[in-house]
Amino acid sequence: MSTAQAISLPSEAACELCRGDGGAVVLRNDELRIVLADEPEHPGFVRVIWNDHVREMTDLAPPQIARLMGAVLAVEDALRAVFTPLKINLASLGNMTPHVHWHVIPRFADDPHFPKPVWAERQRGIDRASVDARRALLPALAEEIRARIASRE
Amino acid sequence: MSTAQAISLPSEAACELCRGDGGAVVLRNDELRIVLADEPEHPGFVRVIWNDHVREMTDLAPPQIARLMGAVLAVEDALRAVFTPLKINLASLGNMTPHVHWHVIPRFADDPHFPKPVWAERQRGIDRASVDARRALLPALAEEIRARIASRE
Repeated sequence: MSTAQAISLPSEAACELCRGDGGAVVLRNDELRIVLADEPEHPGFVRVIWNDHVREMTDLAPPQIARLMGAVLAVEDALRAVFTPLKINLASLGNMTPHVHWHVIPRFADDPHFPKPVWAERQRGIDRASVDARRALLPALAEEIRARIASRE
Repeated sequence: MSTAQAISLPSEAACELCRGDGGAVVLRNDELRIVLADEPEHPGFVRVIWNDHVREMTDLAPPQIARLMGAVLAVEDALRAVFTPLKINLASLGNMTPHVHWHVIPRFADDPHFPKPVWAERQRGIDRASVDARRALLPALAEEIRARIASRE
């Protein structure tokens, strides 16, 4: 067990969230950024990324945690307002990129993985009309996110 | 798209988290419960379940959100103290059971899905000795969770 645990994970120098934005930036402040993820099958997939290379949520101070979760839930609110999804999925995993980031994902009955998590096996093909209709809403989503974060500050 | 969205999801009467505890209860208060999940391949898999049938995190009031996330992160702390996992995974999905609950999962290089999410395809077989060693720590985990929640109240 100890040998298996000795596997090395990316350090800051090799971390893709330290080397790049991780998506199309909607908003950035001193602590975090909110990006539209490059997940073409799941339009509206947003990531909230802590700027510093911190491994786990409990490595952050309580006021930092509160601000980060506030941003995650502001994104949830914006997604609900713009997309009316069937469900919101939230996740902080980071097994491959151990740098705190949240996946905020609007889920729909016709998305390729519903009702499974987006990381599970595909359930169906893409509904191109639905994907295109949701992609058309991305500028409105970005605006809604910025408005909701501004109203919290 | 509207037709696909009309799919019905479980109501309170049919909700498995309204009808049962959802695991072996470690701690329960008026708002939430913390359970050891029945996930034999992932010992230490904990769920934090809101008692009321609430669909999304943003359907909760801000003080409720703060207490729920406080409990989730107290579990993360306890898992780190007892298991020293390679990574913690946090997720609130609920596509099949739209009743707010958090998965708090300690991840290890030798677990069957690492570095993929536990919902993705299996990467390897189970290391029985590792699983048994971790199962033996579950009573200590339960104790650690109760102590950390108590210290917050």
